[in-house]
Amino acid sequence: MKYEYRFQVRLHDTDRAGVVFFARLFTHAHDAYEAFMASAGLGLGAMIEAGLCLPVAHASADYLLPLRHGEAVVVMLTIARLGQTSFTVAHEFRCGAEVRARLQTVHVFLDPRSGRPSALPQDMRARLAPFAAPAPGGKAD
Amino acid sequence: MKYEYRFQVRLHDTDRAGVVFFARLFTHAHDAYEAFMASAGLGLGAMIEAGLCLPVAHASADYLLPLRHGEAVVVMLTIARLGQTSFTVAHEFRCGAEVRARLQTVHVFLDPRSGRPSALPQDMRARLAPFAAPAPGGKAD
Amino acid sequence: MKYEYRFQVRLHDTDRAGVVFFARLFTHAHDAYEAFMASAGLGLGAMIEAGLCLPVAHASADYLLPLRHGEAVVVMLTIARLGQTSFTVAHEFRCGAEVRARLQTVHVFLDPRSGRPSALPQDMRARLAPFAAPAPGGKAD
Amino acid sequence: MKYEYRFQVRLHDTDRAGVVFFARLFTHAHDAYEAFMASAGLGLGAMIEAGLCLPVAHASADYLLPLRHGEAVVVMLTIARLGQTSFTVAHEFRCGAEVRARLQTVHVFLDPRSGRPSALPQDMRARLAPFAAPAPGGKAD
Repeated sequence: MKYEYRFQVRLHDTDRAGVVFFARLFTHAHDAYEAFMASAGLGLGAMIEAGLCLPVAHASADYLLPLRHGEAVVVMLTIARLGQTSFTVAHEFRCGAEVRARLQTVHVFLDPRSGRPSALPQDMRARLAPFAAPAPGGKAD
Repeated sequence: MKYEYRFQVRLHDTDRAGVVFFARLFTHAHDAYEAFMASAGLGLGAMIEAGLCLPVAHASADYLLPLRHGEAVVVMLTIARLGQTSFTVAHEFRCGAEVRARLQTVHVFLDPRSGRPSALPQDMRARLAPFAAPAPGGKAD
Repeated sequence: MKYEYRFQVRLHDTDRAGVVFFARLFTHAHDAYEAFMASAGLGLGAMIEAGLCLPVAHASADYLLPLRHGEAVVVMLTIARLGQTSFTVAHEFRCGAEVRARLQTVHVFLDPRSGRPSALPQDMRARLAPFAAPAPGGKAD
Repeated sequence: MKYEYRFQVRLHDTDRAGVVFFARLFTHAHDAYEAFMASAGLGLGAMIEAGLCLPVAHASADYLLPLRHGEAVVVMLTIARLGQTSFTVAHEFRCGAEVRARLQTVHVFLDPRSGRPSALPQDMRARLAPFAAPAPGGKAD
């Protein structure tokens, strides 16, 4: 299952080279992630208030083609890996049928007491699982 | 007395029109304000940790001339008004002798218990006073 | 007539004080302005490509109440003043019935050849007029 | 050889979780890159004006420890790979002796006429080389 998030490229996303500044895509990816988590019943606000923390431990991006001012973008979001203590969100940025960029963010679940990585709560795992691509070999963390 | 803060216009400050996006100047002004406050012994970090809060209640900007990528900017910071429960910071953005923009931010001191505007602490007032322009009539809030 | 623009407060809009960083509202206001202009047939992208420029000459904000992470915000946009060479956009930020902030941005029309303020094109004026509050005295620039 | 770039974590870098928002580090890394390029005689402004373009084709980050408001950060910048048509900049974010994050950005040189990846100009290669780690096997693109 995929989650779709839509936004439009705004003037402040661009720089004087005329295209979207590369770092902006990580912000849009996180906006998509927030909207996705809320739709999956895992609103970040409630989690932060409960002391639960899912910091980004790793992020990466492949920029295939530039994004331009005014373009309508669809972010297709899936869970690329659902590990023991972390999960990886894959964000595909599309304009029409064209893929412009692919981003990944790895979120680690920290135990609220120790601050150390710990097993994803069962409820969270269950809510994320429908968006996880079927792993051929089912490898964990 | 004036406080000087320097920065350089970076690519991400600009937009596709080729000049600095107007909202960015408020961010740079706040960076200048943070550096100023720290230099005056009023570091924002320590204040936030102590529950003290100086939220921006009003902000305004006059954009006289565009700022361009790579330009070296000096922000001349003064206290334009030192009131009973708030103070106004004036930020003059200069490139060389040329004034490009003038911003103002009004910071209100909130009582940590009630969350309501209350009298600026004497120590804070004393530290800000040297940067306050002599008020002709000395009018308060 | 009013134009409505909706957005949700995202994690990156907030700062460690737990509420939206004041400068972010100017960015959201400009996003609202871009959406409004496009809906009025005055897309900024096409204007920039045609060499037409409407830089922000003045901006101001009154912050009444903080905006918090996750809140759904409606920006009510009107033309507060439709002058000879410039117009003022008023942005009211609401959560439910509560007004949290009021921003204004003044946009000046620059002649593409001289780069100097010049009369707003008739077509632009006609498209903006329905969103202009009826001026009691009809005063120009 | 390494290039050092210094900055201080500002309020707007942080989010309500109290630490720097992950995407902000890419912006700071690009600021470091701009300062580095200027110091190496490869100012981005002059290049953009000459139609030369070095877009980011890939970016990645490992976040080891959070960065906090007010912390003084040193970015140690090196050229991790100097390829035929691209180069990789490695950014190590340190507070004191502690490494908090490691970022990489891959910049591709586009031929100003074709817009396609093409060989890095000899002068650019010569200016970047002193900052390149000695490649054990000397592999190209």
